[in-house]
Amino acid sequence: MKVVVWNENVHEKEIPSVSELYPGGIHGYIKSFLECDDISVTTATLDDADCGITDEVLDETDVLLWWGHAAHHLVPDEVVERVYKHVISGMGLIVLHSGHDSKIFKRLMGTTCSLKWRDNERERIWCIKPSHPIAAGVDETFVLDPEEMYGERFDIPDPEEIIFLGWFKGGEVFRSGCTWTRGLGKIFYLQPGHETNTAYHNENIQRILQNAVRWACPAKKNLPAFCTNPEPLE
Amino acid sequence: MKVVVWNENVHEKEIPSVSELYPGGIHGYIKSFLECDDISVTTATLDDADCGITDEVLDETDVLLWWGHAAHHLVPDEVVERVYKHVISGMGLIVLHSGHDSKIFKRLMGTTCSLKWRDNERERIWCIKPSHPIAAGVDETFVLDPEEMYGERFDIPDPEEIIFLGWFKGGEVFRSGCTWTRGLGKIFYLQPGHETNTAYHNENIQRILQNAVRWACPAKKNLPAFCTNPEPLE
Amino acid sequence: MKVVVWNENVHEKEIPSVSELYPGGIHGYIKSFLECDDISVTTATLDDADCGITDEVLDETDVLLWWGHAAHHLVPDEVVERVYKHVISGMGLIVLHSGHDSKIFKRLMGTTCSLKWRDNERERIWCIKPSHPIAAGVDETFVLDPEEMYGERFDIPDPEEIIFLGWFKGGEVFRSGCTWTRGLGKIFYLQPGHETNTAYHNENIQRILQNAVRWACPAKKNLPAFCTNPEPLE
Amino acid sequence: MKVVVWNENVHEKEIPSVSELYPGGIHGYIKSFLECDDISVTTATLDDADCGITDEVLDETDVLLWWGHAAHHLVPDEVVERVYKHVISGMGLIVLHSGHDSKIFKRLMGTTCSLKWRDNERERIWCIKPSHPIAAGVDETFVLDPEEMYGERFDIPDPEEIIFLGWFKGGEVFRSGCTWTRGLGKIFYLQPGHETNTAYHNENIQRILQNAVRWACPAKKNLPAFCTNPEPLE
Repeated sequence: MKVVVWNENVHEKEIPSVSELYPGGIHGYIKSFLECDDISVTTATLDDADCGITDEVLDETDVLLWWGHAAHHLVPDEVVERVYKHVISGMGLIVLHSGHDSKIFKRLMGTTCSLKWRDNERERIWCIKPSHPIAAGVDETFVLDPEEMYGERFDIPDPEEIIFLGWFKGGEVFRSGCTWTRGLGKIFYLQPGHETNTAYHNENIQRILQNAVRWACPAKKNLPAFCTNPEPLE
Repeated sequence: MKVVVWNENVHEKEIPSVSELYPGGIHGYIKSFLECDDISVTTATLDDADCGITDEVLDETDVLLWWGHAAHHLVPDEVVERVYKHVISGMGLIVLHSGHDSKIFKRLMGTTCSLKWRDNERERIWCIKPSHPIAAGVDETFVLDPEEMYGERFDIPDPEEIIFLGWFKGGEVFRSGCTWTRGLGKIFYLQPGHETNTAYHNENIQRILQNAVRWACPAKKNLPAFCTNPEPLE
Repeated sequence: MKVVVWNENVHEKEIPSVSELYPGGIHGYIKSFLECDDISVTTATLDDADCGITDEVLDETDVLLWWGHAAHHLVPDEVVERVYKHVISGMGLIVLHSGHDSKIFKRLMGTTCSLKWRDNERERIWCIKPSHPIAAGVDETFVLDPEEMYGERFDIPDPEEIIFLGWFKGGEVFRSGCTWTRGLGKIFYLQPGHETNTAYHNENIQRILQNAVRWACPAKKNLPAFCTNPEPLE
Repeated sequence: MKVVVWNENVHEKEIPSVSELYPGGIHGYIKSFLECDDISVTTATLDDADCGITDEVLDETDVLLWWGHAAHHLVPDEVVERVYKHVISGMGLIVLHSGHDSKIFKRLMGTTCSLKWRDNERERIWCIKPSHPIAAGVDETFVLDPEEMYGERFDIPDPEEIIFLGWFKGGEVFRSGCTWTRGLGKIFYLQPGHETNTAYHNENIQRILQNAVRWACPAKKNLPAFCTNPEPLE
């Protein structure tokens, strides 16, 4: 299967601690732990022409991961619409952390996706649906300290599945790992992943994302089905 | 509670049989069976300035019904965004029949909302969630003949609740009555209601819509919650 | 509408602090804040013949609340089956706190309903579905201190709606307010309510239960539908 | 992975046409199209001691398929409880056709699972969730003629996923392919499969069941989690 990791790649160039944590960028780091015998991974960023997200690229992509934060508004609407159409056609989409506020996530959810936030909190994650493929091999509970607090109410449509809940020392809770289907495409949102913290170094987070790309991979991608006017079948 | 019935009001002016079936327009006819002691109903159409859908109107609206078909593209994007924000803030929205392809429904669903269609079919509707408030007093099964066939696959997000399924003589099935929440707003989609047929004359359909406006009425409407950065609570 | 509050009424007789907190028993206390012009409330306990839960009583009951803990095993199976049939027929059921381990709740859920627990924790509850009728007028977040910790994984079927999440100082989270439908009956589970704590004195908890009995009240109750062998309709 | 196909094996011995359609029994026939390089299949019936369903067998079973009809009441309660515990612990369960009325299905659903039925109808099945692994490679719509009509209302808890809807010539509709989770176990119900008809000869039905056993296979099985009383984590 073919995976593309997209990252705006802005903080990496502006905040030294980010590039120290993630020398090849967050995208490069995620690529490093996803790539394996049967998963080939490429990356794309805001620096690429068309954000590196052309129809040619997406035609060949099974699952797209999306990390954005400071530059959501710089992603052209045509790129967003292109991703939207490919998700509807079956491409998997994994939205990471501050990607909750990306154009593409809000486009697919139909809500504001707003939430509460606060830097540098102790987080504890709980797996509440251990039978889900995304939870395979993941600990029942594990700590990320510090991670950015994301708190309810998270303005999302009721997820099809809530796999992880987050607990924060400061008193908040969060639906930290959720799934939806849009068209033929599977979507997974994962809350941890702040640029100045080390979530992507955590073995459980890596396992979750390795599981998620396999879960989101479509059996087959189809062109979107528009309205049709068929003859009676019976 | 205050209800607004919006109708593009295009077919009524172009097709004599439609204005015969619905002399005051589909909007006027729906108003006639919704209005009662505690429900006041007004109407608005594409003919009104701003479609009759200003912030002043929506501030006072508990539930908006939406019928559109030929003129979806003539509804300005600002009107769509205005409705979107009020749904997120808690206004109920009931989308009728060909409104499945309206800008506002697709905006809230995050999918294409495409389906199969064919004129003049015999339809039989089944209630599969009789405990739902929208189903109160509605027959277990009833016939609409003819009605426009709408067939699966209906490209919608998995509904929170499927209350009615449709059976069509020509061999199709359909999720004919479904609910979702977006932000604080409740949404109900009802499939029957073709402009040249008599669905809105049917007592079960009238009962469903009477129930639906009560179900969708918010306890309280709030301004949308944008992201906030609170101090720790604990 | 008619409500019955059932309580095993065991701790009240054995632990002085419980009868001090709830002089007329937990059932009497809950009755005191549910009763109003249009809601008549009676109580029943393990001390009554047939637990006070006969078919005659249930025939007249719109919503049953159930508090049990030490004496789940003393509730006869016939009583459980009687409640089950009435829920299937449309009677609402509200299961309180340690009622998670009652025969009737496990019978309706089809799972073990097991969880983690610990006495005397600080709990903070969050409302994540503020548009739900059960959440009307309830604060976005509120504290119960102390309350018994109930922690995930809570072995329940995925709820139809998760309205409240619980945060505990000791690091746990919980799906603290959830709904399901079984047959024609609506079910609500609410986690707080430990016998030596004061949850039922809390205004938000009282409001939640007042809302819940109205939400769970059936439009109409029907005898259970067994399998039938009808002639073709078409 | 290891699969067990259980069949009461009653009609095969009493109705010649059944044993002609399914010479080795329905269980033997299902085994024949499930078995492949990485799936080993055994069978068990009511004729075996303990129904062939001992703890030793279930400990080694990833997914159990269940076909029953005339002899539901002859399956001992201890066998039902054994299957229940293994599902809660993670074993997948696929319930076939008239298995809707089996003790184990009703035990796990918490409802009556009643429905309408009629022999020898023309059925057309529609796939409404084509992105689901169980739907991979399955036609959008296909016909079974004749098949037993199973009609709504099907008294089941709202499924987590509805993958297939059934249309019947006589006017009924049905949720023909649905999933639930109970404990750690995944459950799939598939409606077609009447003993005197040929559903299991149909390529789409075979594909669905091949997909379903892979979908229901647990990553890992665990002993049931009973209530625990842990120390605070934080």
